[in-house]
Amino acid sequence: MSHDFFASRWAQRPAHVTDGGHGLPAGFRAAAAAAGIKGDGAIDLGLLVCDAEDAVSAARYTRSGVLAAPVLVCRDETIPNGIRAVVANSGNANAATGRAGIEAARAMQEITAQALDAEPGAVAVASTGVIGAPLPTAGLQAGIADAVAALDAGGDEDFNEAIMTTDAFAKRASLDVRLASGTVRLSAQAKGAGMIEPAFATMLCFVQTDAALEPETAELLLSVCVKRSFDRISVDGQLSTNDTVILICSGASGVRVAPESEDELRFGEALDALLRMLAIMIVRDGEGSKRIGRVVVRGASGEVVERCARSIANSPLVKTALHGADPNWGRIAQAVGQALPGSAPLMLDIAIEGIAVCAGGVAVPYDRDALNVAAAGLEIEYEVGLPISDPTQRFETEVLFSDLGHEYVTINAEYTT
Amino acid sequence: MSHDFFASRWAQRPAHVTDGGHGLPAGFRAAAAAAGIKGDGAIDLGLLVCDAEDAVSAARYTRSGVLAAPVLVCRDETIPNGIRAVVANSGNANAATGRAGIEAARAMQEITAQALDAEPGAVAVASTGVIGAPLPTAGLQAGIADAVAALDAGGDEDFNEAIMTTDAFAKRASLDVRLASGTVRLSAQAKGAGMIEPAFATMLCFVQTDAALEPETAELLLSVCVKRSFDRISVDGQLSTNDTVILICSGASGVRVAPESEDELRFGEALDALLRMLAIMIVRDGEGSKRIGRVVVRGASGEVVERCARSIANSPLVKTALHGADPNWGRIAQAVGQALPGSAPLMLDIAIEGIAVCAGGVAVPYDRDALNVAAAGLEIEYEVGLPISDPTQRFETEVLFSDLGHEYVTINAEYTT
Repeated sequence: MSHDFFASRWAQRPAHVTDGGHGLPAGFRAAAAAAGIKGDGAIDLGLLVCDAEDAVSAARYTRSGVLAAPVLVCRDETIPNGIRAVVANSGNANAATGRAGIEAARAMQEITAQALDAEPGAVAVASTGVIGAPLPTAGLQAGIADAVAALDAGGDEDFNEAIMTTDAFAKRASLDVRLASGTVRLSAQAKGAGMIEPAFATMLCFVQTDAALEPETAELLLSVCVKRSFDRISVDGQLSTNDTVILICSGASGVRVAPESEDELRFGEALDALLRMLAIMIVRDGEGSKRIGRVVVRGASGEVVERCARSIANSPLVKTALHGADPNWGRIAQAVGQALPGSAPLMLDIAIEGIAVCAGGVAVPYDRDALNVAAAGLEIEYEVGLPISDPTQRFETEVLFSDLGHEYVTINAEYTT
Repeated sequence: MSHDFFASRWAQRPAHVTDGGHGLPAGFRAAAAAAGIKGDGAIDLGLLVCDAEDAVSAARYTRSGVLAAPVLVCRDETIPNGIRAVVANSGNANAATGRAGIEAARAMQEITAQALDAEPGAVAVASTGVIGAPLPTAGLQAGIADAVAALDAGGDEDFNEAIMTTDAFAKRASLDVRLASGTVRLSAQAKGAGMIEPAFATMLCFVQTDAALEPETAELLLSVCVKRSFDRISVDGQLSTNDTVILICSGASGVRVAPESEDELRFGEALDALLRMLAIMIVRDGEGSKRIGRVVVRGASGEVVERCARSIANSPLVKTALHGADPNWGRIAQAVGQALPGSAPLMLDIAIEGIAVCAGGVAVPYDRDALNVAAAGLEIEYEVGLPISDPTQRFETEVLFSDLGHEYVTINAEYTT
């Protein structure tokens, strides 16, 4: 990983965090293999293993009403906080596949457990790809055996490649985090480009550390950091059937992150920055995205600011304007109006890249040339202010989002994904 | 108007309705003019007048929280059921324009009233075009005078042209409706192609009849028919700031449509078919749309079927698949799952063009070739069945929607609309 992993003004590198290039934390190995799911010998299976038998894990899953088989198996058939291996495939989501799908997900889990001499409940399963097609299982045994044989502490790049679908680039990092008690490594591999509007969980992201965390700490930190990263992004407003994030802590560094300690805060900051940057990378890779936006909405209730921010981030009119570098704020006003029916006349303020364009619901004079220059950047920030009657009740939220361009149409109209 | 106005299997011509070619009902005149709003002498102003001083009207407006000035003026400053003229412009929405916008809308209303020797409250104002730009008023006086001078019973085509923006084709009809008491004419002119997800009202549509209706009848019929037509369509899920539908009844035919009569039913059927076909035409003209869809959702509550139908109709993944003639039903399942979080495992059924593809949440075997042929048509029907526990509580709804193709991106990324 190059020195500029934190290549966005919206994800700051904490001072105690440095890029560690690549490689997994102590106690982890990973590999990739071909299991016949994509066919033609393509790499389509990733395996990640934590060698510490007392590893601590935490996980978040999609809350879609149509849950993929691997999500059901992870949710119902893994040991709480006791996951220490992940077997993941691309090329098939194993969703809307019924009982046969559950059996295929269990087969992935059981073959992996047997090969690793682990309990099935210690193995998480994840899938990504087309929905509604049966998962080919004939090549699983051989593919998993190949992956086990190839397991390596430097296998994070291969593992990441194995879980990519329409992703145009890899999304991973290996960070070194200086804590008071010592330095730990924190790594993650993510995938995602389309069908992205995570809620309560996200696409696929696997996070590892050699720090030792209590189960409660792992749950707390993952939960908070997912809420501030993957839960705040949208490519196309579409919640997936397969979103999964799993954090596994090997403890192999000997550094313990105690609950409510300074180190918990520092570790949390590093995890937060890592997941936030990965989330931004997913938005940037939003199936042909050229420009990304961040909308910040301030208002009198949490529910109202959330509704407005999502309405703006998911408006195809806002997204095509972003794509075309058109600072067309009338479409922002329209999206807010749609989100808040019956509230007219609405005294809203809008600024684009810090340039006020609308105040109290009305256009204000602005420097059109400066606005056009600002709108041609690669990261565009929109601020929306809604009326606040009680200054002690102020709420703010953000959503990071992709634009909508021709490539999104090409990818999604011309290929079955 | 050609003989095939009802050119969709989703809008049936009632047996007592025939196409009347073009021309307004008795008692109406219309015209178009250039008022300097689009510039370069382009036609941008439409005027519609009912000569009957006792005309009866009904109207529906957008419920956006950001209401355009003409909508505010219509809502607050016209005579209830007493509108008998409409002045409408394209090229500028006069929305998010504050006090100056209200004054511009009032100027349109007052200049028109004066030129027609009518009360200002009898004149409705409508605008469509870019949001947030001041409405140029310098050419209004001359433009309205030109329109008044050109008023003609055959001016419906010119009027319709004057209100078009990104519309690729005109949407109008002049129908003859045989009632027991005599034959009346029913005509309408609509516009709309983008920023279309009307709720409680619609884009611009002006409807005229020479039948005589009570105010209550006009309100009732317009309300019901709008709910069954414009309220059931989506191009891009975007509620406009300017949606307006106005029905004006001149009574000039001498045929009275009495409340709760057989003729009310027949007139209502004709109005219903007319607005439904116009709604379908708007979807078909959905900014580059090639194929349109109709989703029918059946389930155990009105709220649930509505949520699922909108989720499917507004999914960019479903819409790009429709564009690409790809019967990718996994994306339908995903959209339903997103609409019903926490309901897994969900026993949903999906059929495309009558071919069952998913039953009880699981893929079923189907004829792939037949499905591909069906998916390549111009009107694709999707049926979604959700679990129903109490057979006496069955709800069904529909949404008609455009696909999402390259031309939508081109239109909306490359031009400020």
